[in-house]
Amino acid sequence: MSSEDTLARLAAVIESRKPLAGGDASSSYVARLLAKGPDAFLKKIGEEATEVVMAAKDADHGGDSSKIVYEVADLWFHSMIALAHYGFSPADVVNELARREGVSGIEEKALRKAVARDADEEGSKS
Amino acid sequence: MSSEDTLARLAAVIESRKPLAGGDASSSYVARLLAKGPDAFLKKIGEEATEVVMAAKDADHGGDSSKIVYEVADLWFHSMIALAHYGFSPADVVNELARREGVSGIEEKALRKAVARDADEEGSKS
Amino acid sequence: MSSEDTLARLAAVIESRKPLAGGDASSSYVARLLAKGPDAFLKKIGEEATEVVMAAKDADHGGDSSKIVYEVADLWFHSMIALAHYGFSPADVVNELARREGVSGIEEKALRKAVARDADEEGSKS
Amino acid sequence: MSSEDTLARLAAVIESRKPLAGGDASSSYVARLLAKGPDAFLKKIGEEATEVVMAAKDADHGGDSSKIVYEVADLWFHSMIALAHYGFSPADVVNELARREGVSGIEEKALRKAVARDADEEGSKS
Repeated sequence: MSSEDTLARLAAVIESRKPLAGGDASSSYVARLLAKGPDAFLKKIGEEATEVVMAAKDADHGGDSSKIVYEVADLWFHSMIALAHYGFSPADVVNELARREGVSGIEEKALRKAVARDADEEGSKS
Repeated sequence: MSSEDTLARLAAVIESRKPLAGGDASSSYVARLLAKGPDAFLKKIGEEATEVVMAAKDADHGGDSSKIVYEVADLWFHSMIALAHYGFSPADVVNELARREGVSGIEEKALRKAVARDADEEGSKS
Repeated sequence: MSSEDTLARLAAVIESRKPLAGGDASSSYVARLLAKGPDAFLKKIGEEATEVVMAAKDADHGGDSSKIVYEVADLWFHSMIALAHYGFSPADVVNELARREGVSGIEEKALRKAVARDADEEGSKS
Repeated sequence: MSSEDTLARLAAVIESRKPLAGGDASSSYVARLLAKGPDAFLKKIGEEATEVVMAAKDADHGGDSSKIVYEVADLWFHSMIALAHYGFSPADVVNELARREGVSGIEEKALRKAVARDADEEGSKS
C-alpha cells in the first residue's frame, strides 16, 4: 500500500469518528478525543513530540532507534486528528510542503535565519 | 504529484543533505541542522509542536485556521530530518501506521487506557 | 540571597520591562519578548521544556548533569515572563503549590489517576 | 511561609520519595514517578509545558487566566521531581538565576541573539 493510500485511508477513518459523523466515543479512541475537544488532542501533540525527542536521545546513546519510528507515527497520527478537527487533511500538509517552491525554497529562507543566529551566538561567546 | 511522491522526494533531498552525502551546511538549512547534530533538530520538534498547539488555540477562538496546516508542515518536515539522521524515512512511519492492524487496532488499545483514566479522573473530583 | 528574594527580585525586574512600565525592547530581552506578545514567550516555554528533557537524557547516559539546572532555570525564567504578562508572579505559583494541602494532597489525587492508568496499561499488553 | 521555605519543603518531601529513601510507589505519586524512571517524569514536563501554553492562549482570548498559575505550578512541580532525581534542588535553579550576573546579564546575551534573528526575519520577508 502506498503512503498516499495509507494517509488518505487513515484520514477518512478519523473523519468518520467526528461527533457529527456519528463517531462513538465509547468504542473509538479517536471519537473520544474528538468529542473531548481540542485540548485533549493538542496536549497529546506536546506529549508525543517529547516522546520523539526522548526516543531519539536514547538512540544517540546506543538505544534501539526503531522506537523513533513508533513515536513519530504517534506524533503524526495525533496531528492528523487535529487536522481533521479543523477541517484539514494530511494531503493539505503534504501540499503545503510541495508548495514551498521545492525543498531549496524552504531551505533558502530558513538558512538565512540560521546563519544570522549562529553568527550572533559565536559573537556573544567572546 | 501524489502525497507519497512528495514525501519520498522530500526524504531524498534531506538524504542528500547529510554530511556524508556531501550536504553543504553553508548553503542548505537541512545540511546545517544535520551537521549540528540531533539536539539542533530535536529542539525544533519541540518548538514546532508548540507552534501547532498555539495555531490551533487561535483557531479555536476564531483565528485563521490555515496557519495550522503551515505549522503541522513544519513539524512533519523537522520530524523527517530526524528520521533521516537515524536512518529512517517517512515511508517507515506510514508503514508503522498501516501495520497497527488498521485504525481500529490503534484505537482499541488506546481506548482502554483512556477510559480507565477518565473513570479515575471523575472519581478524584468527588 | 534567599530563593524568595531572588524570585521576587527577578519578578520585579520582569515587571519593569512591560511596555506600559516603559520597558525598552531595544535594550532588554525581556521587554522585547513582552512587546512581541504571548506567542513569542510561549514558544520559548515549549522550546525550553524540550531542552530540559534533552539535558536529562544526556545525563541518563553519562553526560554532565549540571546542564539540567541551567535548562530548568531557562524554563522557569520564561515561565516567569508569561506569569508577568498575565498579571501573576512566582509567589502565586509557590502559593498554589502550598495551597494543595501539602504534598500528600497533590500526591493523593495524582496517584489515583496514575494507578488506574498503569493497571490499564498492564492489561492492554496481554 | 516564604516562597523559599515552600520550595525547600516540597524538595525535602520529593527527596524522601526516592526509592533509596524508602519512597513507597503504592501510596505516593512522586515515589511512583521516581521509581518508573526518567522517561515518566520527563514526559510530564513536555505535557505540562503544553498545558501552560494552552491555558495562556485561552487567557489571550478572554478565558480565566488563573488556570495559568495552576499549570505553571504543575510544570515547576514536575521539574522539581526531575531535579531531585539528578541530585539537584530548586535552590540550585534559583542560584543559577541569581548567578547570571543579575537580570541585565541574562538579557544582554539573549538580546544580541534576538535582535540578529529579527533583523534577519525582516530581511527574509522581502
